[in-house]
Amino acid sequence: MEQRELEQLLQKVAQGSATVQEALLQIKKEPYEDLGFAKPDHHRSIRQGIAEVIYGEGKTPEQILAIAGSLQRHGQRTVLITRMAPEAAVLLERSAAEMFDGKFQYDPVSRIGLAGELPPPDTTGSIVIATGGTSDIPVAEEAAFTALAYGNKVTRLYDVGVSGLHRTLSHLDEIMNARVIIAVAGMEGALASVIGGLADCPVIAVPTSVGYGASFGGMAALLSMLNSCASGVSVVNIDNGFGAGYLASMINHM
Amino acid sequence: MEQRELEQLLQKVAQGSATVQEALLQIKKEPYEDLGFAKPDHHRSIRQGIAEVIYGEGKTPEQILAIAGSLQRHGQRTVLITRMAPEAAVLLERSAAEMFDGKFQYDPVSRIGLAGELPPPDTTGSIVIATGGTSDIPVAEEAAFTALAYGNKVTRLYDVGVSGLHRTLSHLDEIMNARVIIAVAGMEGALASVIGGLADCPVIAVPTSVGYGASFGGMAALLSMLNSCASGVSVVNIDNGFGAGYLASMINHM
Amino acid sequence: MEQRELEQLLQKVAQGSATVQEALLQIKKEPYEDLGFAKPDHHRSIRQGIAEVIYGEGKTPEQILAIAGSLQRHGQRTVLITRMAPEAAVLLERSAAEMFDGKFQYDPVSRIGLAGELPPPDTTGSIVIATGGTSDIPVAEEAAFTALAYGNKVTRLYDVGVSGLHRTLSHLDEIMNARVIIAVAGMEGALASVIGGLADCPVIAVPTSVGYGASFGGMAALLSMLNSCASGVSVVNIDNGFGAGYLASMINHM
Amino acid sequence: MEQRELEQLLQKVAQGSATVQEALLQIKKEPYEDLGFAKPDHHRSIRQGIAEVIYGEGKTPEQILAIAGSLQRHGQRTVLITRMAPEAAVLLERSAAEMFDGKFQYDPVSRIGLAGELPPPDTTGSIVIATGGTSDIPVAEEAAFTALAYGNKVTRLYDVGVSGLHRTLSHLDEIMNARVIIAVAGMEGALASVIGGLADCPVIAVPTSVGYGASFGGMAALLSMLNSCASGVSVVNIDNGFGAGYLASMINHM
Amino acid sequence: MEQRELEQLLQKVAQGSATVQEALLQIKKEPYEDLGFAKPDHHRSIRQGIAEVIYGEGKTPEQILAIAGSLQRHGQRTVLITRMAPEAAVLLERSAAEMFDGKFQYDPVSRIGLAGELPPPDTTGSIVIATGGTSDIPVAEEAAFTALAYGNKVTRLYDVGVSGLHRTLSHLDEIMNARVIIAVAGMEGALASVIGGLADCPVIAVPTSVGYGASFGGMAALLSMLNSCASGVSVVNIDNGFGAGYLASMINHM
Amino acid sequence: MEQRELEQLLQKVAQGSATVQEALLQIKKEPYEDLGFAKPDHHRSIRQGIAEVIYGEGKTPEQILAIAGSLQRHGQRTVLITRMAPEAAVLLERSAAEMFDGKFQYDPVSRIGLAGELPPPDTTGSIVIATGGTSDIPVAEEAAFTALAYGNKVTRLYDVGVSGLHRTLSHLDEIMNARVIIAVAGMEGALASVIGGLADCPVIAVPTSVGYGASFGGMAALLSMLNSCASGVSVVNIDNGFGAGYLASMINHM
Amino acid sequence: MEQRELEQLLQKVAQGSATVQEALLQIKKEPYEDLGFAKPDHHRSIRQGIAEVIYGEGKTPEQILAIAGSLQRHGQRTVLITRMAPEAAVLLERSAAEMFDGKFQYDPVSRIGLAGELPPPDTTGSIVIATGGTSDIPVAEEAAFTALAYGNKVTRLYDVGVSGLHRTLSHLDEIMNARVIIAVAGMEGALASVIGGLADCPVIAVPTSVGYGASFGGMAALLSMLNSCASGVSVVNIDNGFGAGYLASMINHM
Amino acid sequence: MEQRELEQLLQKVAQGSATVQEALLQIKKEPYEDLGFAKPDHHRSIRQGIAEVIYGEGKTPEQILAIAGSLQRHGQRTVLITRMAPEAAVLLERSAAEMFDGKFQYDPVSRIGLAGELPPPDTTGSIVIATGGTSDIPVAEEAAFTALAYGNKVTRLYDVGVSGLHRTLSHLDEIMNARVIIAVAGMEGALASVIGGLADCPVIAVPTSVGYGASFGGMAALLSMLNSCASGVSVVNIDNGFGAGYLASMINHM
Repeated sequence: MEQRELEQLLQKVAQGSATVQEALLQIKKEPYEDLGFAKPDHHRSIRQGIAEVIYGEGKTPEQILAIAGSLQRHGQRTVLITRMAPEAAVLLERSAAEMFDGKFQYDPVSRIGLAGELPPPDTTGSIVIATGGTSDIPVAEEAAFTALAYGNKVTRLYDVGVSGLHRTLSHLDEIMNARVIIAVAGMEGALASVIGGLADCPVIAVPTSVGYGASFGGMAALLSMLNSCASGVSVVNIDNGFGAGYLASMINHM
Repeated sequence: MEQRELEQLLQKVAQGSATVQEALLQIKKEPYEDLGFAKPDHHRSIRQGIAEVIYGEGKTPEQILAIAGSLQRHGQRTVLITRMAPEAAVLLERSAAEMFDGKFQYDPVSRIGLAGELPPPDTTGSIVIATGGTSDIPVAEEAAFTALAYGNKVTRLYDVGVSGLHRTLSHLDEIMNARVIIAVAGMEGALASVIGGLADCPVIAVPTSVGYGASFGGMAALLSMLNSCASGVSVVNIDNGFGAGYLASMINHM
Repeated sequence: MEQRELEQLLQKVAQGSATVQEALLQIKKEPYEDLGFAKPDHHRSIRQGIAEVIYGEGKTPEQILAIAGSLQRHGQRTVLITRMAPEAAVLLERSAAEMFDGKFQYDPVSRIGLAGELPPPDTTGSIVIATGGTSDIPVAEEAAFTALAYGNKVTRLYDVGVSGLHRTLSHLDEIMNARVIIAVAGMEGALASVIGGLADCPVIAVPTSVGYGASFGGMAALLSMLNSCASGVSVVNIDNGFGAGYLASMINHM
Repeated sequence: MEQRELEQLLQKVAQGSATVQEALLQIKKEPYEDLGFAKPDHHRSIRQGIAEVIYGEGKTPEQILAIAGSLQRHGQRTVLITRMAPEAAVLLERSAAEMFDGKFQYDPVSRIGLAGELPPPDTTGSIVIATGGTSDIPVAEEAAFTALAYGNKVTRLYDVGVSGLHRTLSHLDEIMNARVIIAVAGMEGALASVIGGLADCPVIAVPTSVGYGASFGGMAALLSMLNSCASGVSVVNIDNGFGAGYLASMINHM
Repeated sequence: MEQRELEQLLQKVAQGSATVQEALLQIKKEPYEDLGFAKPDHHRSIRQGIAEVIYGEGKTPEQILAIAGSLQRHGQRTVLITRMAPEAAVLLERSAAEMFDGKFQYDPVSRIGLAGELPPPDTTGSIVIATGGTSDIPVAEEAAFTALAYGNKVTRLYDVGVSGLHRTLSHLDEIMNARVIIAVAGMEGALASVIGGLADCPVIAVPTSVGYGASFGGMAALLSMLNSCASGVSVVNIDNGFGAGYLASMINHM
Repeated sequence: MEQRELEQLLQKVAQGSATVQEALLQIKKEPYEDLGFAKPDHHRSIRQGIAEVIYGEGKTPEQILAIAGSLQRHGQRTVLITRMAPEAAVLLERSAAEMFDGKFQYDPVSRIGLAGELPPPDTTGSIVIATGGTSDIPVAEEAAFTALAYGNKVTRLYDVGVSGLHRTLSHLDEIMNARVIIAVAGMEGALASVIGGLADCPVIAVPTSVGYGASFGGMAALLSMLNSCASGVSVVNIDNGFGAGYLASMINHM
Repeated sequence: MEQRELEQLLQKVAQGSATVQEALLQIKKEPYEDLGFAKPDHHRSIRQGIAEVIYGEGKTPEQILAIAGSLQRHGQRTVLITRMAPEAAVLLERSAAEMFDGKFQYDPVSRIGLAGELPPPDTTGSIVIATGGTSDIPVAEEAAFTALAYGNKVTRLYDVGVSGLHRTLSHLDEIMNARVIIAVAGMEGALASVIGGLADCPVIAVPTSVGYGASFGGMAALLSMLNSCASGVSVVNIDNGFGAGYLASMINHM
Repeated sequence: MEQRELEQLLQKVAQGSATVQEALLQIKKEPYEDLGFAKPDHHRSIRQGIAEVIYGEGKTPEQILAIAGSLQRHGQRTVLITRMAPEAAVLLERSAAEMFDGKFQYDPVSRIGLAGELPPPDTTGSIVIATGGTSDIPVAEEAAFTALAYGNKVTRLYDVGVSGLHRTLSHLDEIMNARVIIAVAGMEGALASVIGGLADCPVIAVPTSVGYGASFGGMAALLSMLNSCASGVSVVNIDNGFGAGYLASMINHM
């Protein structure tokens, strides 16, 4: 019940067109709908009219198609799908012809699909996305496409890991001018600390499951990033590119 | 040497009031201060002239006093000390009379000391700091004083844990109007998810070591927060109030 | 030998229609069935005549069919099979025609098969089964069918996770009127705490292996639920829908 | 705002003694207090008028005294304090003379204090509390006093660990006649499985931190209990005697 | 109830001197008392008349004295106390004068007390107890005294760790002639594997909590010993000298 | 170099037919061969002429065949192969016709192959092998066949888990008369403690990886068994049936 | 920017041929390029002209071929590829005809490919590579080929695990004369300690993921090696043969 | 028996001044002392006559004094004691007057004592010891004093952690010219990767237990270092300064 409806209901009581008991019942029955919750969905659009994101993992191609179609019918011109199986991409591509003017692209490595066109950036600040190695790129791309879909400018600095520090430092300009940085790294995850020490903006660290042996599926990078001696660094879940892109966009739009 | 000073030096060279050799010597003598590094110290001031933070853990009272004195002599009017032992507080209090106009306060629970006065907020947005229980308050206060020392407005929502959801929800206004939220919780750490689902701004989750049994020193809350199903949530280290306050201030000043 | 049978045997001895030696032999031959043990089998029927449950994991289709057939021949009209592979379902379906009047249904997602018909509820109280997300539904269904097979009324509240708190709260009535609640959640498992804080009845928390990265196969949800700050919450093993349904039925029949 | 108050407010609107705007403001201002939440406090009384429990850990003697005094002034005749330091007991004892008619007792081993008198049981069913060894008794006593304070009959079966199975089995009567059982055990925690296999009622397993070496502070018992092959067993946090007693009382009063 | 008793009971029923109900009750009530359990106590004497062991950890000096006195009064001439605090030793020493003919000895390092005299060995085979370093000796002594108290010959090979392999090998004779070997080692626990590879008898491995850093309180040695590539090696809990001595004695007496 | 050879070498020196330098080199070069090592191979025969065991894991069918053939040619009439893939069994079966008089059997569940015939037992004592559930049987069979191959009598007590305690107790005779017991259990591993408390002989506990959720691949059972409150229990690695059978045979032959 | 360049830049400013702003930019922009980094690549050649190593994991056959081709065109006559899938080997073999004079070999077990010829050793000292068992050989071969490709002499001591100590000791000469030793072992990893105790040179320990049950993917060997009681032992990541070979070559060339 | 003695014995046999039997007996009686083992003690001197190191942890002051005295009497002029309690230092200082010409120094922070004088370096190459922060210095000093005591030149680069990268880079010369580097760091341990990427020599990484929260006593730094993406890095145990210094000296003397 929205505020306007509550007002109308009270007016009905004042006018006698609703009894006290009827009003009482109605107020108690839907006590939460009227709170103006800001977040009805997990993957909800931050700013209306730009893009919507579907989390593809564990959804059948048909389910993804159905959701994408529903979004398109409600006016959504761009739909991003993360963790999308190749079979779903085939199905989407076929259907995109009529639904999204034939615009559909899919990257099998990062498993990201994009129906429609990316919106133009609506902010001036740039989100820098850096990875320690080439194996971290799929997670970084998930973050990048998420940020792009929410209207951000994105600068990719891939394979700038700290074991070749000159590669990291050769991008000092981008790092120092960033508004937000997403540092994506597996193995020992030292990239977050080094970038956190260089940058003057919030750094979102994304540990990846890249590595072997005692990396324990990303545990080593995760612990390393949580213990970062650099200030301004916070951490999201292992391989959670979407979460990092979403949060970075939120900060970039402040 | 700050950027402004380097510029002045170069202008002197251009004007002939400094020789090339003099400039060369000066630039080489302090080779790193002039690189425009944003972060010479771990606890460096974000914006000059407001406050400086000393990490007190593992430092003797004499070391803390020496650092505080040095900062004060360099013009710092406010110095915050985190993780400060009571003995250090006694020493600081005694010395504050002449160094900080007798202004010194110490909270033995959160072990935070403040020499001088908190600066007035220089932003309009507010940082909301919420805790799950009363035992989480020391960590929250570390975050709060850090944020205050860096010039932020702070709203404290303490003991609003999700097992008494009405307490959380009774502060819906503050949660929804916050510019940044710091969610501090031990035990199962569910506060971060609930607030992350309600708020429309970045949420910095701070797991605390509060709990017993299978909380494993904060591990349960940490894992819970990393796995939060709410978007816009990132995590710092267990009990890391300073880190959360620092990052929140960074975001709040964007 | 059930208590009633032992009583009859003793009466035969008292009446002389059975000799002491005959009775002695019979008692010794099945020495444990007559101890009044409440629990001869893992999946034993709580109350005779309603349903029997087979744990299908690691059993071949032929083994499942054989057990189901044996139960049916002993008068069991309803048999529930959990963790059942699709191949076993095919075999059961074919055989159900003669064994269970052709009544057999199978859900490939929750891997639950039902031969015969669910018994009508024999209690008035309702077991509420809530899940945090849609991915938790298979585990929830295992709990639901177990509870149904044991004669309970079941109310399903699926996908009411705390990151969209309005969804949880829109079911406040069901939560507050439940006699027992089963809270099924993966990821950070906060649902158990929130429901535990709202409900006034026992809450059985079931962590699921749903999640990725630092969820560590359900570990994060498990620790979170064990550390729940809400009273009245206890926990069963990860993904153990059957255990939760069994215990809930036990409590509901008190 | 309670239901009665809302009704009165609506009647004022109906009678014209309150304007629509005034009512609107009042309803929106306190939207959650009127929901009839059942659980305002963590340690809230299950049934009014019997007892209240204070969690003493991390609270100063003065804080405990203040809370106990406040409860007594609001009519509470019995107050149980768990995890209470001896110093707090000394303080409470001194004050109990006037507050609780001089009735105060304290057990330094289980660290439980009781101000006032235990209420008489208000149920006929009995809660059986079993421990594996004598070292588990403090946790068991916390559960026992909690159950007693909430009006239950309690049967203590201490030191009936499975390595001396005859001790366990010599109490078969109590185990089989229990309405709820709390199984408290450290080390390998096998007691829960054995009792779970014998009993025909809900079993609440409480792992304790008793043990050494690879017991890892209760981890071994916790994992053992979660993996119990017996049905009807659920688990609470390590050493969480209060939680087990609270839940057992809830079930026993159904 | 033995077969003869059951027969008598049935005859009473046949003769009418016992009712059906009385017989039913008796059969159900005592099904376990007649099982002839072999192990009444945790620390029970393996062979009567030799020695008794008290586990001192967590017992007050008074409790230990009381148990020792009770054992002495029941004819026990030797009592071994493990994990005994120095204060308890003082108390025991004082009381031993009358109770054990003044014979009492205590080793503060291994915290073992011995009241009375060790019995002479009653087996010809020898138990070899080897340690990796000198820090493992307290645990080894607990095993040694346990074995001695149960009537075994013991050969101590201390500080024969594998990093100085010549020390291990210089005792090849003892190792190859042992009937049972207890290998006590912390740190990397390699001693168990090396001895297991040399010996031709059962090897009981005891990991100790000796070590630092990544030894994690004995976890490293425990895992190492469990994974031993040598056959004939089994493992007891960390620091469990008593358990190893008890099992070794059991095997040595076969 | 054996003693006789050393004597001959020294005599050559005394006779001048070998120089001092030649003798020095020879003594230093082979210092270890003369130690009379008892254990040349991992899977070596305990008593010659009975059987040999091949660990099949990670070996190709051809490798297994080659080793078996070599053993047969050296007079081995019985060869046991553990962890053997079905393809290897097919190959062995085909070759057994000529090598082992056509005697070859293979059990696909426990993946054990037996070429030739099991030797008759050469001890009177019996090794009891008990399992908690039916899923533990493959590991138990590995232990059983190992024990049989080494000339032991074996008594199998399968599916006697403690959740149905009457099943365990119905075999009290076997348990109490055993010379060694192997307790094989997954899930919570309580079987080891219950049997350890009943038996008066060494108990070798084998945790299995059977279980789900928080059993963590056998970790729960392993920790449970290590922390067993029963004396006389030691533990081997998870699923290590061979190791348990080997050690049990060693003890049984003492 | 070197000192000379900085001087020239300042002179340009003094002469007016460069503006202050231009100089400022240049000083800030290139502070890192002039550091003379020694290590441009992860797998860079230690000494030019000998060999180059490609880490094949996660690279497509085409990518590997492209890198190998590029290296060959830049004059590299030998290219080693680690962790190479068989499909890539097929592709490389086909292309090697023209690129590497038809010289290409591939070992499917260790997944190592070698294009071109191994260079002759350029050091006199030998790297000894020892393994505990035959299953550790693939990791050892990765280390061996890496060391060979970097110009070292390599001595392989395979299957010399400590459970058959005579095998280890029969190679005492090689162990004592080695310049560097790589000890490769899974399971309990004791080999590193035994060799570390015998050798007088640096020992690089490589834990392998070989093992089962509680080896936890190499964790047991890793912890064991880190806790080695022998001096001179350091550890690399689980299965990291390349890292060990690289480091050994570095030490061997000192 | 050393090689020289064996030679003499053989010559006696050749000369007839010893019989074959006498020689045989003597060789068999002490079979291992004559193997020329290089490592009789854990803390043995690498090169005779320079220094000896005592591991002080767990030794009483009297034990340390006794060992030091024994070493001095055997001609050792310098004795280093690591992990030494202050009380032991007091005792040593008092005794050093006569034993070590009054030369004794003790550092309570790193708990290192030095009796006598450090030997002059006997190598030209330098061991660089770097720490991430000031809290890591005690561990670094243990490494430094160990290296010094073994005759190395040591360069200390303390507090050069990667969060202030300019501090690390300002020592590029020392890093690139080092012969061996010891990288000591707690928290996220990124220092090892950054230095490993810059240096062209072996890097020994020492994780420290410095840190809080999710550093888990050095586990985070340990895992980070094991997963270092830089080549040439190996790891020793947490806080193992001695081990790193010992190994570095070994490499530096090659």
